[in-house]
Amino acid sequence: MSGNSIGQNFVVTTFGESHGVALGCIIDGCPPGLELTEADMQHDLDRRRPGTSRYTTARREPDEVRILSGVFEGKTTGTSIGLIIENTDQRSQDYSNIKDLFRPGHADYTYQQKYGLRDYRGGGRSSARETAMRVAAGAVAKKYLKAVHGIEIYGFLSQLGPIEAEQIDREQIEQNAFFFPDASKLEALDEYMRELKKSGDSIGAKVSVIATNVPVGLGEPVFDRLDADIAHALMGINAVKGVEIGDGFAVVTQKGSEHRDLMSPEGFASNHAGGVLGGISSGQPIVAHMALKPTSSISIPGESMTVQGNTAEVITKGRHDPCVGIRAVPIAEAMLAIVLMDHLLRHRAQNQNVHSQTPVLGMRS
Amino acid sequence: MSGNSIGQNFVVTTFGESHGVALGCIIDGCPPGLELTEADMQHDLDRRRPGTSRYTTARREPDEVRILSGVFEGKTTGTSIGLIIENTDQRSQDYSNIKDLFRPGHADYTYQQKYGLRDYRGGGRSSARETAMRVAAGAVAKKYLKAVHGIEIYGFLSQLGPIEAEQIDREQIEQNAFFFPDASKLEALDEYMRELKKSGDSIGAKVSVIATNVPVGLGEPVFDRLDADIAHALMGINAVKGVEIGDGFAVVTQKGSEHRDLMSPEGFASNHAGGVLGGISSGQPIVAHMALKPTSSISIPGESMTVQGNTAEVITKGRHDPCVGIRAVPIAEAMLAIVLMDHLLRHRAQNQNVHSQTPVLGMRS
Amino acid sequence: MSGNSIGQNFVVTTFGESHGVALGCIIDGCPPGLELTEADMQHDLDRRRPGTSRYTTARREPDEVRILSGVFEGKTTGTSIGLIIENTDQRSQDYSNIKDLFRPGHADYTYQQKYGLRDYRGGGRSSARETAMRVAAGAVAKKYLKAVHGIEIYGFLSQLGPIEAEQIDREQIEQNAFFFPDASKLEALDEYMRELKKSGDSIGAKVSVIATNVPVGLGEPVFDRLDADIAHALMGINAVKGVEIGDGFAVVTQKGSEHRDLMSPEGFASNHAGGVLGGISSGQPIVAHMALKPTSSISIPGESMTVQGNTAEVITKGRHDPCVGIRAVPIAEAMLAIVLMDHLLRHRAQNQNVHSQTPVLGMRS
Amino acid sequence: MSGNSIGQNFVVTTFGESHGVALGCIIDGCPPGLELTEADMQHDLDRRRPGTSRYTTARREPDEVRILSGVFEGKTTGTSIGLIIENTDQRSQDYSNIKDLFRPGHADYTYQQKYGLRDYRGGGRSSARETAMRVAAGAVAKKYLKAVHGIEIYGFLSQLGPIEAEQIDREQIEQNAFFFPDASKLEALDEYMRELKKSGDSIGAKVSVIATNVPVGLGEPVFDRLDADIAHALMGINAVKGVEIGDGFAVVTQKGSEHRDLMSPEGFASNHAGGVLGGISSGQPIVAHMALKPTSSISIPGESMTVQGNTAEVITKGRHDPCVGIRAVPIAEAMLAIVLMDHLLRHRAQNQNVHSQTPVLGMRS
Repeated sequence: MSGNSIGQNFVVTTFGESHGVALGCIIDGCPPGLELTEADMQHDLDRRRPGTSRYTTARREPDEVRILSGVFEGKTTGTSIGLIIENTDQRSQDYSNIKDLFRPGHADYTYQQKYGLRDYRGGGRSSARETAMRVAAGAVAKKYLKAVHGIEIYGFLSQLGPIEAEQIDREQIEQNAFFFPDASKLEALDEYMRELKKSGDSIGAKVSVIATNVPVGLGEPVFDRLDADIAHALMGINAVKGVEIGDGFAVVTQKGSEHRDLMSPEGFASNHAGGVLGGISSGQPIVAHMALKPTSSISIPGESMTVQGNTAEVITKGRHDPCVGIRAVPIAEAMLAIVLMDHLLRHRAQNQNVHSQTPVLGMRS
Repeated sequence: MSGNSIGQNFVVTTFGESHGVALGCIIDGCPPGLELTEADMQHDLDRRRPGTSRYTTARREPDEVRILSGVFEGKTTGTSIGLIIENTDQRSQDYSNIKDLFRPGHADYTYQQKYGLRDYRGGGRSSARETAMRVAAGAVAKKYLKAVHGIEIYGFLSQLGPIEAEQIDREQIEQNAFFFPDASKLEALDEYMRELKKSGDSIGAKVSVIATNVPVGLGEPVFDRLDADIAHALMGINAVKGVEIGDGFAVVTQKGSEHRDLMSPEGFASNHAGGVLGGISSGQPIVAHMALKPTSSISIPGESMTVQGNTAEVITKGRHDPCVGIRAVPIAEAMLAIVLMDHLLRHRAQNQNVHSQTPVLGMRS
Repeated sequence: MSGNSIGQNFVVTTFGESHGVALGCIIDGCPPGLELTEADMQHDLDRRRPGTSRYTTARREPDEVRILSGVFEGKTTGTSIGLIIENTDQRSQDYSNIKDLFRPGHADYTYQQKYGLRDYRGGGRSSARETAMRVAAGAVAKKYLKAVHGIEIYGFLSQLGPIEAEQIDREQIEQNAFFFPDASKLEALDEYMRELKKSGDSIGAKVSVIATNVPVGLGEPVFDRLDADIAHALMGINAVKGVEIGDGFAVVTQKGSEHRDLMSPEGFASNHAGGVLGGISSGQPIVAHMALKPTSSISIPGESMTVQGNTAEVITKGRHDPCVGIRAVPIAEAMLAIVLMDHLLRHRAQNQNVHSQTPVLGMRS
Repeated sequence: MSGNSIGQNFVVTTFGESHGVALGCIIDGCPPGLELTEADMQHDLDRRRPGTSRYTTARREPDEVRILSGVFEGKTTGTSIGLIIENTDQRSQDYSNIKDLFRPGHADYTYQQKYGLRDYRGGGRSSARETAMRVAAGAVAKKYLKAVHGIEIYGFLSQLGPIEAEQIDREQIEQNAFFFPDASKLEALDEYMRELKKSGDSIGAKVSVIATNVPVGLGEPVFDRLDADIAHALMGINAVKGVEIGDGFAVVTQKGSEHRDLMSPEGFASNHAGGVLGGISSGQPIVAHMALKPTSSISIPGESMTVQGNTAEVITKGRHDPCVGIRAVPIAEAMLAIVLMDHLLRHRAQNQNVHSQTPVLGMRS
C-alpha cells in the first residue's frame, strides 16, 4: 500500500494539491452494477464547499466532479473508477508571501523537512482542499451502503468551542450553516462566530458521525478492527487531534457495571460501546466523535521562522476558516462510509459459509 | 494485508488464542544486523504479565518467548523472525459455564455472529492474552529505534477513575504496580483499588505514551499519516475507546492563538500538537493518550442471553482485572514502537535524496 | 505487505531457516467452519519430503506439522492459523566448510550482499526447506477449494532433461517416485537418473500443474490477473526460471486462427489459453508449467570465491538432489491452491451482486 | 492492495477503458527532487503508439499525457503524481456489432461472467489501450533509475513467428518499426508481415527486456523475489502466456555443470541465471523474455456465441494488430522499470545499516 491509498478491498487513492492543475482519485473495488452519476457525488461536495456560509472561507471552488472511467451506461463496471475535479479558483497571490515562511500550526515545516521541497501555495498537498476527493469517493460508498444494505450515515457538529448541542435533532442538521443539530443554540452559535471573526482568532470543534443499520460482523481483528480503522480514517482528516468510539473518554471514570451494554433477546439495553464490540460491529448504531483543532491561519500575529532560519512574524490575511470543524462534517461521513464499505467487502470475502446459530437481536446479519 | 497483520515495511503478524496451544508472531522487515535475544523481549513481557501486583488478575502465565528464526549468531538476518509463547496455565474450567453465554461488554456476541462459531475459552482470539505477542514484537522495534536512532518510548497510567496524575515523574513509573508517575497519589490509588475489588466492580483508565527524540519527517500523508497510524494501533488495543494526540479533546475549546506551537530557530515554544504536524513528526516528543473502558468481567450480576436466545444472568467468578488499564501501558509502548518502526522504514524508502534546506530546530532529521 | 507474505484476503506468511529452530507459518483469512487437522497437511508434506525415493536427497526430516491456533473442536474459527514444523535433522557439519564460501548458482552471494550477513547453514532462508510451510498452507487451501467448490489440483513431472511425458495418465503420478504420468518412459527415467547420480551432475526439469472445475471469474485485472499471480507464485519457487500458462512459449509460432479457443453453447472447443482469458479464469482447466534449473550442489568441482575475495574451488559432498524438479510438484500444487484461494475470496468480496446474463457453457459461475 | 495497483513502496494505480473519457494513473511513492516533465513520458508513449508503422493498427491516438499533481517547479514533490491521457479517437461504430458477441480469444466472456456487465467498446478495460498509462508511469521509474543509479532498460523483439533474431545489436532496435535488433533479418520480417496481413491472420512473438547496471541486493524473499515480481508484471501484460528469466525453459535440458554461473573476484563467468539468484539481483544484467500470443482479432471467421447463448460467427473488420508483440516492447520496459523501482525502495527501507563484507565483483552495491 501507499500513503495516498486507504482500504484493502475497496481502495481509494487520491492526488492533488491546493493550487495544482486538478484533484483526482481512483476508486478500486467498487462492486459492479451500482447506478452512479456525477450528481450522486456533487451533493456532498457542495455540502463540503467553502463559501456556503458567511462564516467559512470565501474561496469559491465550484468543485465539479467528473467520472472518467469505471461506469458504463450509468452503472459501475467493477473496474477502477477515475474521478477528477479541476482546480479553478486558486488565487496564488494570496500565498506568495509565505513562500519561505513556516506558518506555525501548519504542515509547512514538516513537509519541507520530510521531502526537502514543497508546493507552498495554499499548503500544497497538506491543504484541506485535497479532502474534496475523499468526499467524492465517500459518496460512492454511501450510495452502495444505502442501496444494498440500508446503511445510513450522517454527521453533525456536536460542539463548537464552549457551545454544546444538547438535543440531537437530525432534521436540524441540514437547516443551518453549521450542521448543528440543536436549534435552541443556533443564535448563540451565530453570535459566537461573529465575535470570533471580529477578533481574527479561531476555535476548535467536536464533530460526531453516526452509521445506522450496520450489519453485525464487520471488522477484522486483531489489527484491522472496525474501530481501529475508523480511528485511522478520522484521525487522518486534517486538524483532527482525537477520536472516540461510543462513550470515548467518558469511560475513564465509568464503572464496569455502568458501562457494559446488557443484552436480551429484544436487543441491547444501551450503546456505551458505540456499535463496536471486540473490534466488530454489533449491529447497534456506530457512534464516533472527532476533536478538531482551531486553525492556525488567523489574523493575530504569531512568531515563526523562515526556511533560511531567520525569525519572522506570521499573519494570515485573506480567506480563512474561523472554524474548520464545520467543513469536516461531510468529510467524516465520507471516511466512515469508505471504512464501512471496505469492511463489508472484507467480511464478504471470508464469511460466505457462516451459519449463524445465534439469535439476531432483531438485526440483519 | 490481513486483519492479523500491521505495518507495511515492518510487518507484525500474530496468531493465538487465550487457551490455545501457543501464541506466536512473525516479524517481517526487521533490518539485518540488530543484536537480539529473548531477554530483550522478556523484560516487557514481564511488565505486561498479570500476577505482578495484587490488584491484577491472578492467572500465572510465565510468558516465556522463544526466537524460532531470523536471528543468527545473535544478530537479525533480515529474514522473517518467528516468535512463540507456549500457553501453560489455561484453567479451562473457569470458563466452561459460559460456553453458550454471551457476556455483555465482551466480544462473544460479535465473534459468534461474524464467524458462526468461536473458541469460547477465555475469549479465544478476542482475549487480551493475544497482546503478549504485540509486546514481544514491540520490544524488537523498541530496541532498534533506541540503538539506531536514540528514540525512547515510555508509557504510564495518567488517570484511574477519578484519580489523575498531576506530576509526571518518569522515575516513579516502574516503582509501583500501576505504572503511575505521581507518587503523591499512590496511597489514594491503592485505597481506591481495594474498595473496588471489594465491590466486585471495575473502573476505566487513561494511559499515556510518549516517544522522545523522534526524527522529523515520519508519516506518509494523506492517509497513512503518523497520527492516523498511531490512532489505528492504539484503538486496536483491547478495551480502548478513545485516542488523543497532543492536547486531544482539549482543542475543542482552544483558540487558534492558544493552540498553535510557535517556532523560532531555537525550537518550538510549546507542544500542543503532540509531536505530529500535518500527519508528519515534527521532531517534538510524540504524545498520545488512550481511554480504556472498565472490564465487563465483574462479580456484579448482569443480564444477558444465551446462544440459543434465552435470557441468562452473567457473573464472572475467578480471576479478573478490576482495571485493565494498568496492563495496557506496555502494550501501548509496543504499538507506538511498531508504528514508528514502520514509518521509519517507509520514510527511508522514499527519501534517500532529500536535501533539507531548512533549519533543523536543534533536532536530527 | 512484506516479502514473506503472499496473498491479499487469504494470506500466508512464513518463517524459518534450513537449520534454524523451526519452520512456521501463519494463514490469515481462512474462512471459518472448515474441518481441519494435521493429517490434512501431513499427506502433502510427506509427498514433498526428501528421502522418499532413492534418487532424492538423503536428509531425513520427519516434517511433522502442528496446528497452534485458529482451529477449535476440529474446525477453523476464521482467526489466524499458526503452524509449526520443528527442525530435527540438521547435520550442521555438512556445511561448515562453506561458511566463507560462495557456492555458484546458490543465493549465498546475493544474500550476503543484500543483508550483510547470512545464516550459511544449508542456505539458511534461501534453502528449499522453507517450502515445507508453503506446502502445509497450500494443503489447507486445497481442502477448502475441494470441499466447497469441487476444485481439484494436481501436478506432475512433464519432462526430466531430455525425457518428455507423452501420455498424461493421472493414475500414474502417485505410482512412482518421480510424479511422472507416463508409465512407458519410467524405465528410461530410472536409467537416466542412475547415470546422472554416478556422474555427480544434476539436470533440469519441467513441472506442470492443473486445476479443474475452477469457477469462471477469478482474477482481478489489470495487475492482479489470475495468470500474473500464478506466475508470481510459481516463479517464486526455488529454482524456477520460467512459467507458462496454457500453450506458453509455443504461442510464439502460432497463428491467431490456430490459437484462439472457439466457443459455442456446448463449451470451448480447445484450451490453448490454459484456462485464463483476459486475466480471468474461463472455467476451463487451468494449465501452468514451470522450468526448474538443475541444482548447483553437485560433486563436480566448480570455481568460486570466498567472502574475503579469494578464489576457491567448490565441491558439494553429502546429500543433494540430482533433480530438484521432482520435489517441486507438491510445492507447485500448493502455490496454485494458495493463489486460487486468494482469488476466490477477492472475487467474492466484490461480486455479490453479479447477475450473469450470459450462458454458462456448462460451468458453475 | 487492489487489482488495479502494482507495487508496495512505488505504487502505480491505473484507470481507464478503451473508449472511455480518459485513461489515468496515480504514481505514489516517487521520491522527491526528481526533475520531471511530460516530455519524459511522451517519448515512450510515442514508441508504444499504434500507427507508427504500416503494419500495426491504424487507430490514431495522440496519447498526450498531462501531469496533474505531484510536480512543482519541475521537480517531484514526493506526493502522489496524477497523470491523464484523454481519449480522442474512439470510433465506437467499429465495435457496435459485437455488443452481444463473445469474441473468442478475448476477454469478453470472462469479463461478462465476472462482473455481470461490461463496456464492450473496444474491449473496455481489457483493451491494451489501458497499457498507455503503464508506459507513462514506467517512464518516470526509468528516469529515476537512470539518473540516480545509472540503470538502463531496453527491450526488443527477439522472435516473430518463425523468424528469430540471431545478432543482438542495440543500435538497430529503434531503427525499424519492429524493435528488431538483427538488421540481417529485416527484409524477411517485412515480407512475412506483408503475407500475414494479406491472409488476415495474426502471429505470436517473443519479446526480451534487459536491465543493466542493476545494484546487487534487490528482491524480497521468499515471496516477493525479484524474479517473481518481474514474472507477475510481465505476465500481466495483455497477450502474454509465458515468462522466462535468463535461460528460461532451456534449463530443463541443462546439466548443473553447464548452468551454474561460476564466480571469481573478476566477476561472473556467465549469466545463465539472468541476473537473479535466490530471488535477489546479483548485479549482472537482468534478462527476461515473454511469449505473446497472436491476437484473435483477425479477418478469418471463427465460431463463437452471443450473450443470449446463440451461436454466431465472428469476423473482425477494421483496425487490428497482426502482431501485438511489437507494441509490447515499450510496455515490457515500463513494467520492468516499475518493478525495479519498487524493489529499490523496498531494499532501501530495510537495509540502511548493511555492512557488506563481501567483494563486490566490480559492481556497485
